[in-house]
Amino acid sequence: MSGQIEHTLRGSWTPAGAAAAGLSRHAVRWLANRIGLPDTVTPTVPVSLLNAPSSALPATAHTDLVDAVGEEFVLTSAAERLGRSGGMAYLDLLRRRTGEDVAVPDAVVLPGSPEQVQRVLDLCVRHDIAVVPFGGGTSVVGGVEALRGDKTAVIALDLCRLDRVVSLDPVSRIAVLQAGMRAVDAERLLAGHGFTLGHFPQSFERATIGGFAATRSSGQASSGYGRFDDMVQAVRVATPAGEWRLGAAPASAAGPDLRQLAIGSEGALGVITEVAVRVRPAPRHTRYEAVVIDGWQAGVEAVRALAQQRALADVTRLSDVEETAAQLALSGHIPHRLVRALLRSKGIQHPCLLVLGWETETRRELTQRRAAALRALRGRRWLRLGQRPGKAWRESRFAAPRQRDALMDFGVCVETLETATNWSGLLELRSAVRTALIRSLQTGVQPPLIMCHLSHAYETGASLYFTVLAARDEKDPVGQWQKAKAAACEAITGRGTITHHHAVGTDHLPWLDREIGQVGTAVLAAVKRAVDPTGILNPGKLIRPAQ
Amino acid sequence: MSGQIEHTLRGSWTPAGAAAAGLSRHAVRWLANRIGLPDTVTPTVPVSLLNAPSSALPATAHTDLVDAVGEEFVLTSAAERLGRSGGMAYLDLLRRRTGEDVAVPDAVVLPGSPEQVQRVLDLCVRHDIAVVPFGGGTSVVGGVEALRGDKTAVIALDLCRLDRVVSLDPVSRIAVLQAGMRAVDAERLLAGHGFTLGHFPQSFERATIGGFAATRSSGQASSGYGRFDDMVQAVRVATPAGEWRLGAAPASAAGPDLRQLAIGSEGALGVITEVAVRVRPAPRHTRYEAVVIDGWQAGVEAVRALAQQRALADVTRLSDVEETAAQLALSGHIPHRLVRALLRSKGIQHPCLLVLGWETETRRELTQRRAAALRALRGRRWLRLGQRPGKAWRESRFAAPRQRDALMDFGVCVETLETATNWSGLLELRSAVRTALIRSLQTGVQPPLIMCHLSHAYETGASLYFTVLAARDEKDPVGQWQKAKAAACEAITGRGTITHHHAVGTDHLPWLDREIGQVGTAVLAAVKRAVDPTGILNPGKLIRPAQ
Repeated sequence: MSGQIEHTLRGSWTPAGAAAAGLSRHAVRWLANRIGLPDTVTPTVPVSLLNAPSSALPATAHTDLVDAVGEEFVLTSAAERLGRSGGMAYLDLLRRRTGEDVAVPDAVVLPGSPEQVQRVLDLCVRHDIAVVPFGGGTSVVGGVEALRGDKTAVIALDLCRLDRVVSLDPVSRIAVLQAGMRAVDAERLLAGHGFTLGHFPQSFERATIGGFAATRSSGQASSGYGRFDDMVQAVRVATPAGEWRLGAAPASAAGPDLRQLAIGSEGALGVITEVAVRVRPAPRHTRYEAVVIDGWQAGVEAVRALAQQRALADVTRLSDVEETAAQLALSGHIPHRLVRALLRSKGIQHPCLLVLGWETETRRELTQRRAAALRALRGRRWLRLGQRPGKAWRESRFAAPRQRDALMDFGVCVETLETATNWSGLLELRSAVRTALIRSLQTGVQPPLIMCHLSHAYETGASLYFTVLAARDEKDPVGQWQKAKAAACEAITGRGTITHHHAVGTDHLPWLDREIGQVGTAVLAAVKRAVDPTGILNPGKLIRPAQ
Repeated sequence: MSGQIEHTLRGSWTPAGAAAAGLSRHAVRWLANRIGLPDTVTPTVPVSLLNAPSSALPATAHTDLVDAVGEEFVLTSAAERLGRSGGMAYLDLLRRRTGEDVAVPDAVVLPGSPEQVQRVLDLCVRHDIAVVPFGGGTSVVGGVEALRGDKTAVIALDLCRLDRVVSLDPVSRIAVLQAGMRAVDAERLLAGHGFTLGHFPQSFERATIGGFAATRSSGQASSGYGRFDDMVQAVRVATPAGEWRLGAAPASAAGPDLRQLAIGSEGALGVITEVAVRVRPAPRHTRYEAVVIDGWQAGVEAVRALAQQRALADVTRLSDVEETAAQLALSGHIPHRLVRALLRSKGIQHPCLLVLGWETETRRELTQRRAAALRALRGRRWLRLGQRPGKAWRESRFAAPRQRDALMDFGVCVETLETATNWSGLLELRSAVRTALIRSLQTGVQPPLIMCHLSHAYETGASLYFTVLAARDEKDPVGQWQKAKAAACEAITGRGTITHHHAVGTDHLPWLDREIGQVGTAVLAAVKRAVDPTGILNPGKLIRPAQ
């Protein structure tokens, strides 16, 4: 494939993409010194320069699909198909830079209603076509890769036209949203009625409601608003076995909670078309601030105290020493020399940044909850940095995905991964994953930069989110990351869950089997057979193909 | 069957059972006037007077079971088998009064470890024997009825020997408890370490940890401590397909939450042997109080305000006018003449009792949460009754099951049922169920007494719990209740969930199909086939037998 552009970078700075992504010249120099960068790098290739294989969609299927959704909503151009050829994992971005190993769907189908989704599924069963549901395309685990499995063709089922608020019940505080609605639009529309969903994952700017449900998403403010699965009261799901409506009440004892099969089903057990979510009044009072705590262990203890005293801020995010140092170095927001002096004066040797954010209806609630949090933090060696760095974090909180593209321009291998476990296993889990990543990526002179933060705390445990930056191995960039990821997953297995909020997709499949065991794997396969007997739904994701 | 004893009651009061159950002479007179009572009633028959059919357990199976668990733990006496012949539903109690239609297991098997449970299941598969897991025996929906389905025999698998604390992690605040441990013992053992589970359903005095998980139990303090399914972090389940361990972290995005298939599985998808639950510090400060609000609708609005402002007390329980009147009349705790005078002076015409209870670690938390609750209640026509009736409610909160037995001695048809829905549908749901019950039970001169309370509130809705008291139709007492229950279930269907915390068992099965739909029913059946291919597990409960 064409489109490979090489240019020399050492010492240079290409401001266009980098500056747009909020990366300063200083930040790039700091990184170059810290992890080393290759001389020659491969920048993004515009989609228009990539080639797509010709569509394998049979003519009869095309005709039927056009009949179901309308001619303008069955797209087969290379650009449209390439645009739904994968998600936002580092490996997706890498593949799109070279054009190699990109799985391209044979068509993009855009249904306009839940009924049309059902008709498309029925047609795809008849024509033996694989269906990959596509929302914001932000999967970082291969969840939207256009794999066809053993089917004759594969379509991307882009749900972007399912973008309506179906209903809003202000008394029960329940909004029924169509699955293709983007989170940004949901917030805007709900704000018009004085409500918020309060779900702000890093993918917020692109992700959709259906994607949140299908992947068990968790947002940056989920300590306050709950994980997305906590918010879902009901779902409407199209399956080859027929439509499925789940969720009759806020809570029920009517057998197993089957909603929890639809939530996290990643398009492999059905296509979520509508989601009834709990909404809350839009906050009128907001306060974000930051403190520094001395040492990761002390920081973890502090967050545990907040969680177990039920005094968590809506956003509660603790960075380890490495991430804190990088934030001080990379961010223009925190006056790091002043901070260093202050830290020294307080005797803080291992600074860990803790961002706390409250979003409340009343000022009293904010005051009381903040006071409770500060009480829980008392008696530790800490430094309060005030609101400026807290606000700065809030303002830049969706920037990382953009920065990743820019960093890749500079030859950085950059990816994230995450897990969760009980409090008593959290320190060991972090050490094990760090060690595995460092060992795997320590190929050159300079070690990789492994940063970690705790961003979702529960009474019994918390999540850990790792950001990995290393000099890219230009000889085998894909293999470099695959090895590192496998090492991290091995370290996680038996110590925590293979993913706290990134879903399974293709990437976590080998480790999911070990997490849910032989019986769990058999149960998932049985459910799959019941709802999707011919296996058209998102083959190769979540559930291993039948042997 | 023998054992039927008839005696005349009108005007008399048999203090033995009634007084022991906390029923005063005054209360019985009030009831007799209110609903009318039959002249002749059928009192409890001691188990020793009932006959059990002889055990159908094949000798080879008996030998193998003895080999698996030990001779003293395979019981075949009539008394032991009759003791596990059903739960605590009104119809169970009725049947045990006449000895008719009692499904008696062929043996009672008491495994001593999860491994022994697994061996027993394997043996029962080999010998084609149905297995009914038995905990506290408090099911009110037929969940522990010893049905054999198409199997040659049926055993009650009594889990009472699985009564250990497997581990307690005070850092993560997670206790791993064996499934047969009684809630009372769990609380006692946890209290020794300064912790509480905080799960207090009305069945508390008899129910077990495994039963809570298997039925998605909800406790009286679940507004504060959460429903039992909220507390479960992990489960260990024995199935004919092998052992299943679920739950690797406090939260996960590793596909569908399969724990939620084990929770609520009612013994039909496996035998829960261990449950890892979140515990909390035992409360040091407790305050229970009661207020009266004018009118059911105003009361519901008040509780909704509490829930949506996240100011619920740990116990928040609102009685409707009928239940409030009965409580005033039946309880010796509330000085009802004084209260009536006070209500008149406040202009309260439709008094609805609201019990609020807080259980906190610190006094400050109690003060702040109570103040928040009182703020949310402000601006309504109400009367504060102080702590005495609140404490009285707390002290008698597990008495109702005992009182039911005593009421049955007086010829009362007494049963409860419950549901839940969104706030905007709650008033209609109550009216519809009330109307259905009154129509069905209004056979004599006096109308039945239908009382209702709201005891579990969520941001999006709440549960409704109905207590039904009617003069028993001695000609067809079973049919009388079956008709009333069916009428109530029809009223619930389409308006709410068929059960908020009583599970499905046999009683709710026809309506479960309508709640989860054709796809949901097919999914449950598929899961059943995967974990229990020959269908030995609790046949006829939760899942309709394959046709």
